[in-house]
Amino acid sequence: MKMRVLAKDIKDYAGKEISLSGWIHRVRELGGVNFIILRDRSGMVQLVTNDEIDFNLESVVTATGDVHENEKAPGGYEIQLKNIEMLAPAAGDLPFPVNQDPANIGLENILDNRSISLRNPKIRSIFKLQADLMRYFGEYLRGEDFTEIKSSKLVGGATEGGTNLFRVEYFDTYVNLAQSPQVYKQTMVSSGLERVFEISHAYRAEKHETSRHINEYVSLDVEMGFIQDEMDLIELERNLIKYMFTRVKENNQKELEDWGATVPDPELCDKIPVIPHEQAKKIVSERIGRRVFEINPEAEVVICEWAMENYGIDLVFINEFPRKKRPFYTYPKGLKTMSFDLVFRGLEITTGGRRINEYKMFQEALPKFGLTEESLGAYATIFKYGCPPHGGFAIGLERLTQKILGLHNVKEASLFPRDRKRVTP
Amino acid sequence: MKMRVLAKDIKDYAGKEISLSGWIHRVRELGGVNFIILRDRSGMVQLVTNDEIDFNLESVVTATGDVHENEKAPGGYEIQLKNIEMLAPAAGDLPFPVNQDPANIGLENILDNRSISLRNPKIRSIFKLQADLMRYFGEYLRGEDFTEIKSSKLVGGATEGGTNLFRVEYFDTYVNLAQSPQVYKQTMVSSGLERVFEISHAYRAEKHETSRHINEYVSLDVEMGFIQDEMDLIELERNLIKYMFTRVKENNQKELEDWGATVPDPELCDKIPVIPHEQAKKIVSERIGRRVFEINPEAEVVICEWAMENYGIDLVFINEFPRKKRPFYTYPKGLKTMSFDLVFRGLEITTGGRRINEYKMFQEALPKFGLTEESLGAYATIFKYGCPPHGGFAIGLERLTQKILGLHNVKEASLFPRDRKRVTP
Repeated sequence: MKMRVLAKDIKDYAGKEISLSGWIHRVRELGGVNFIILRDRSGMVQLVTNDEIDFNLESVVTATGDVHENEKAPGGYEIQLKNIEMLAPAAGDLPFPVNQDPANIGLENILDNRSISLRNPKIRSIFKLQADLMRYFGEYLRGEDFTEIKSSKLVGGATEGGTNLFRVEYFDTYVNLAQSPQVYKQTMVSSGLERVFEISHAYRAEKHETSRHINEYVSLDVEMGFIQDEMDLIELERNLIKYMFTRVKENNQKELEDWGATVPDPELCDKIPVIPHEQAKKIVSERIGRRVFEINPEAEVVICEWAMENYGIDLVFINEFPRKKRPFYTYPKGLKTMSFDLVFRGLEITTGGRRINEYKMFQEALPKFGLTEESLGAYATIFKYGCPPHGGFAIGLERLTQKILGLHNVKEASLFPRDRKRVTP
Repeated sequence: MKMRVLAKDIKDYAGKEISLSGWIHRVRELGGVNFIILRDRSGMVQLVTNDEIDFNLESVVTATGDVHENEKAPGGYEIQLKNIEMLAPAAGDLPFPVNQDPANIGLENILDNRSISLRNPKIRSIFKLQADLMRYFGEYLRGEDFTEIKSSKLVGGATEGGTNLFRVEYFDTYVNLAQSPQVYKQTMVSSGLERVFEISHAYRAEKHETSRHINEYVSLDVEMGFIQDEMDLIELERNLIKYMFTRVKENNQKELEDWGATVPDPELCDKIPVIPHEQAKKIVSERIGRRVFEINPEAEVVICEWAMENYGIDLVFINEFPRKKRPFYTYPKGLKTMSFDLVFRGLEITTGGRRINEYKMFQEALPKFGLTEESLGAYATIFKYGCPPHGGFAIGLERLTQKILGLHNVKEASLFPRDRKRVTP
């Protein structure tokens, strides 16, 4: 068999005979001359033949022919077909067309048929961008001396909170799926790694059915030692997303164009405002003309509009959340906490903060939240033997992807999303 | 506060006053002159003082002083201490010493106390190498046009096999933890991504209690479309591990030295033999003087010794496993299959093969394994609409780490390993 050439490379073979393999994306029969658009992972190529074409769309073939220049062909070159070999036929009853704008395909249909829906180049773009976001995240943090970790998702014994956990039958006992790797990230800081990140699944047994929730998501987690307060973390995340947006701008124009999307100007990341929670509520209250008591989804939209008008960028850090709104392990700052959220285009994509690292303060915080040291298993032990001041944050990968591309529903940014009803495919 | 300088960088500050932060690794009091070895994520530095030292080992401090050249000090420079500030005190009852060779600390003790055991630089080296192995894996595959994916670990409905699954209580139903992302990887190939990889957890509810099994592990997964047979996959993995070993050799000498380990010569990866299963059994039978009927753990050791003697490298690809030894979805080659294992230093680290991609062949294979199409949920549908020939493999990250460093037990290469009895920390 001839070596396979990718669609994007055919111009390098002008005048030569080559073989291409891929899916039959489109067929046009113009009486006498017929055209096939062949699609592979790199793009599309036009095949020209005088023969009849009796393959179903989406069949997988290997096509052999000569590369001709033709300014009317997509990309300026086409293949004069000499031979076409069937590798894997497609049935004729595609659940929906692959070669049309996916706007009219319902979300359930897209998710039920991932092996078909992802063939649409626009839908595939979501996951090309997502793969790159994971890469940029790791690139930046490695450059800042962070070590990648993989922590267990099966958490035994008692755990913080205890609500919204999925329970797993584990031999003769039960464990829970980890809601976040936070305890493990903290253990790593305490163990002297100092700076760690993790890209793994996290599980929340929340009963929400909204466009912003999934029950299994990919968490881009960061934890860092030797910080003063949440401003060090905000600074880190500011530089991290600035880097990620820069890389998207350089490297993902095609994906952005497919969705008519733009990424925020990386230079403006230096201007993302940091607004205390109390002040954020005031800003929102003034804009909508009634008092709000928390930064709920509606308020997230409003605060981003405000940031866009005042700073030219629709991202806002909100810090100093009141103690009762944050978990017990959040480091206090009077009645407030050294904590923050990052809201991007109207959606919270990050929660973070400094954690309590002093054993005594940790012990004192527990009863205020109705907790005991015993109920937390080994958590407390990481503070006993020298745990530096530290904190961290996590970015929801699907939400970040969703907001960059302007997708309506976070599920569009998950290959196989899980919600209350969806556990397949 | 002065900007923090890392231990590895103090030579750049000779004659200047700097601050360092870290853990008190060791203290030597020589009557009048006292020495503290301070440890941070980058290394160690000697602090010199005339004052008494009354901090417990492993306390976290910030030390300020002048950098002096001293050829007797580790690294050739030391700090004349002016001030030392306690950031987080350590209790005096460390479960085991951090500053000694960990060979005498029992494995259970190491795993029970990760925030202490990882402070030992030798133990930390395991996870520095592991982080880099994940990185090298991604680097190589991205360079070969593979896309990183994250697939669901919550598998609903029926699944292949059905044994060794952990069951999760999922709202009003049950799902299983994914044993591997294989179905999802195949879906991605079929969807036109063609080449994908995933670095995620996988779950096996096996009751083994051996030095080579854990119930939750990190799987380095690869799947590729448009292959002919397993030889294309073997070629890919050969080049992948050649790249990874090259990078380890360039970049991880410290970690190798900590364990007195060497990585196989990357150049010799071209010589890794590919031995059909039948022949591998013969080689082993001859060497041990009795007939073996499968490549069990003992045989894996013997076949690697054989490879070392004959090819100078202790890796062996074994291919053409008989059909009854492989899952139903493995592409047949007569009574054998287009499948392979990679055995490294006496331990299987990879299983892979071409998969059945033809709908009809898939349907025909099922009854031979006592399966029905319905019992497999949506699996069969990926073959209906044009699924190219494809296959893949997975490398166990912990096993690869274990074998590179020569660790006795795979659990040493997992931050928070899970076995039948261990579900904490």
